[in-house]
Amino acid sequence: MKSTHFLLFIFSLSFFSLAQDSIFIRRIYDEALLRGHAYENLRQLCKDIGPRLSGSAQAQMAIDWSYTKMNAYHFDRVQKQAITVPHWERGTTETAWYMSKDGQLHKVHLLALGGSVGTNGLMTAEVVEFKTLDALKKAKIAAVENKIVFLNQPMDAAQIQTFKAYGACYAIRGNGAVEAARLGASAVVIRSLGLPQDEHPHTGSMHYETEIPKIPAAAMATADANALSLELEKGKVHFYLEMDCRDFPDAPSYNVMAELKGSKFPNEIITIGGHLDSWDTGEGAHDDGAGVIHCLEALRILKELGYQPTHTIRVVFFMNEENGNQGGQQYAKWVLSNQEKQIAALESDRGGFVPRGFGLDGPDTYLALIQSFEQLLRPYDLHIFEKGYGGVDIGPLKNLYPGIPLFGFVPDSQRYFDYHHAPSDVFENVNKRELELGAAAVASFVYLLDKNI
Amino acid sequence: MKSTHFLLFIFSLSFFSLAQDSIFIRRIYDEALLRGHAYENLRQLCKDIGPRLSGSAQAQMAIDWSYTKMNAYHFDRVQKQAITVPHWERGTTETAWYMSKDGQLHKVHLLALGGSVGTNGLMTAEVVEFKTLDALKKAKIAAVENKIVFLNQPMDAAQIQTFKAYGACYAIRGNGAVEAARLGASAVVIRSLGLPQDEHPHTGSMHYETEIPKIPAAAMATADANALSLELEKGKVHFYLEMDCRDFPDAPSYNVMAELKGSKFPNEIITIGGHLDSWDTGEGAHDDGAGVIHCLEALRILKELGYQPTHTIRVVFFMNEENGNQGGQQYAKWVLSNQEKQIAALESDRGGFVPRGFGLDGPDTYLALIQSFEQLLRPYDLHIFEKGYGGVDIGPLKNLYPGIPLFGFVPDSQRYFDYHHAPSDVFENVNKRELELGAAAVASFVYLLDKNI
Repeated sequence: MKSTHFLLFIFSLSFFSLAQDSIFIRRIYDEALLRGHAYENLRQLCKDIGPRLSGSAQAQMAIDWSYTKMNAYHFDRVQKQAITVPHWERGTTETAWYMSKDGQLHKVHLLALGGSVGTNGLMTAEVVEFKTLDALKKAKIAAVENKIVFLNQPMDAAQIQTFKAYGACYAIRGNGAVEAARLGASAVVIRSLGLPQDEHPHTGSMHYETEIPKIPAAAMATADANALSLELEKGKVHFYLEMDCRDFPDAPSYNVMAELKGSKFPNEIITIGGHLDSWDTGEGAHDDGAGVIHCLEALRILKELGYQPTHTIRVVFFMNEENGNQGGQQYAKWVLSNQEKQIAALESDRGGFVPRGFGLDGPDTYLALIQSFEQLLRPYDLHIFEKGYGGVDIGPLKNLYPGIPLFGFVPDSQRYFDYHHAPSDVFENVNKRELELGAAAVASFVYLLDKNI
Repeated sequence: MKSTHFLLFIFSLSFFSLAQDSIFIRRIYDEALLRGHAYENLRQLCKDIGPRLSGSAQAQMAIDWSYTKMNAYHFDRVQKQAITVPHWERGTTETAWYMSKDGQLHKVHLLALGGSVGTNGLMTAEVVEFKTLDALKKAKIAAVENKIVFLNQPMDAAQIQTFKAYGACYAIRGNGAVEAARLGASAVVIRSLGLPQDEHPHTGSMHYETEIPKIPAAAMATADANALSLELEKGKVHFYLEMDCRDFPDAPSYNVMAELKGSKFPNEIITIGGHLDSWDTGEGAHDDGAGVIHCLEALRILKELGYQPTHTIRVVFFMNEENGNQGGQQYAKWVLSNQEKQIAALESDRGGFVPRGFGLDGPDTYLALIQSFEQLLRPYDLHIFEKGYGGVDIGPLKNLYPGIPLFGFVPDSQRYFDYHHAPSDVFENVNKRELELGAAAVASFVYLLDKNI
């Protein structure tokens, strides 16, 4: 064969393959948009089960639902991995208020932070406000001791990437209790990590340190934080707080998973997933109902279309991302102890919004790979193929499998912090079509990854 | 100066200009996101005024509100252009139902199409279903005469670009009454042009032709269309319909406009706008409250930041886009008769969703221009800079100003046909941050256009 003929042959092959991929991706989107199961499955998870914090009865319901669902789809090797998770409960009392100078009562919309101790009855103390955690750290003991510390750092609405605005405030929630207790505070209340100025408090994880007293920690709605801050400009404010949340002994739980077995390399595994647990407020619709449904639907679609993957594609519903990441950590250890060859992982944990693309956490060589997908995925409005973050659940694979590429599905982030960890994270706030497009995007990416990695 | 020095000088200049533009665009976004007026202005338009169909009292309220608002912002040359518009009213009766084989009553969620005649009392007739307008055109008179034609063509959910799915069904709404009446039908009811399968009917414009009888035309909710179609599989269905909508004599109305006067070329005008009128159901929040607010806010931001445009930037709130486009047509004639030099126009009329980019309807030379903006706008998640559609209101400029570039703002389209022309097109379904990002995108684009055209 002459070299020009050979080049033409190679070119035709690659053109043929491109056309074939293009047709298959179109079939994926047709299945997701015309005959999709994603929306109804998310409805079941949100409405028939609801919120599902680690260790709760609903978390167990969700595990049973997932296991049954994966079996009903006749996936390969449907299984549960037994793990141990923290078990914290909000209890039944969660009340806060203050009186303003004009004698008016202000009830505060507030949620205990996950893991917080209770107040042991009604607690009252003067409030002292700090705009940042650093400002608190620099405070004198006398200014803080026996007071309720109010950390009022707003998320920066000017940040286009809302996750960056969230990251910048994360410390007030994660470390606020420790830093306040170090100075003798009796409790800490933070401004919710949410972008809108509204009445929805946003909960989330926090931590304690040994040898530093455990003080109650809660988040108030941004509208309440604004009002309290204004009131503090007028003078002292006494804050009333009662919460009976508490820790229970660690509980048994499960990651739930299933596979499409690889035809060529069955022992090389691509893990895709999200987390099945959610905070105990709202319905965990965007966080992370949407994510597990994206991945479940991706596997269903690939199977439905008769795709026989080269490598084994495994969907994992991780437990306990929100308050411990035991699911992710114990999964990574387990697959390593099983001597599995994990070759890539993808996570969807940024909500069920309209897709924009995928981020890579891993060696640069994989950047060229995912950028080569853009041509095929651009007609579906996917345009982000760049370095980024994978996900909390798949994160532990990174240390145990050096060089493994982790991929994060990137939906549009603008509405995420309207709902994140708030009572408004419900099924009604997920758009059917946006959810379906997310599932199709994940399925298409996993298809291309499996064929080209 | 040596040529290498000269090149370096030019390079530095262009680098300096790029950095300057980058800083100014960042200031635009800060103003929109941190100190924006967009959301409150849209609230006033939707909640203090509400729906505002041409010729209605609310349309006049909206004109007065706009004129007052533009004066309050101290824009240049705030003015109203007197125009004449159609005046149609829905009336107070709009009821439809049928009985199913099992004797159950089915009330149908339905809206008269804009411009339809009434039924002149209660009308009842057998329903005959067609899946497309072409199928109806091929029907025999005997199959249609004295019946109610039911045009049940669903929008194609597999279309990623939802406006294409809309365009493909447009004919059943625009021409359904004419084609049905040609064959002697007594009325036409169409499946709403909406993507979700729900209980919201979507109205919209239709037309009659002289010498063909005017028959009543209405749109039913997609869920009702599905149910009726299933019922028709079981046998004949008698449909009951009463509507007292009707035409009134043409009414006086206005386009409302204001300017930032150009510093170098005050007689060269860039028109930016959307339409102030809306259908009489819902609140015209996305269609096109968001569009007029985008453009109003863009002008406010440019003025607030002290930008002195090279050319005159004029914001126009067009009247009557929905059922006649008299605003757009009479504006184009008026500016030509005033011997104005219109050099470009931009329209926002695709809702207040998260921005994706801009489309060009005009000579290819302008494509390179807008693609040169991408580098600066990419950090704001804007990625569409391609040939496309401008807008209905600015469309008439094209014939009168040959070669003029028309630009259309392109927000994400996935949720648009959930709300378009439906009772659900209300303020609550516009996200504050998405609206603000739209205003900032329009302001940034107009800034770059003014500097580089």
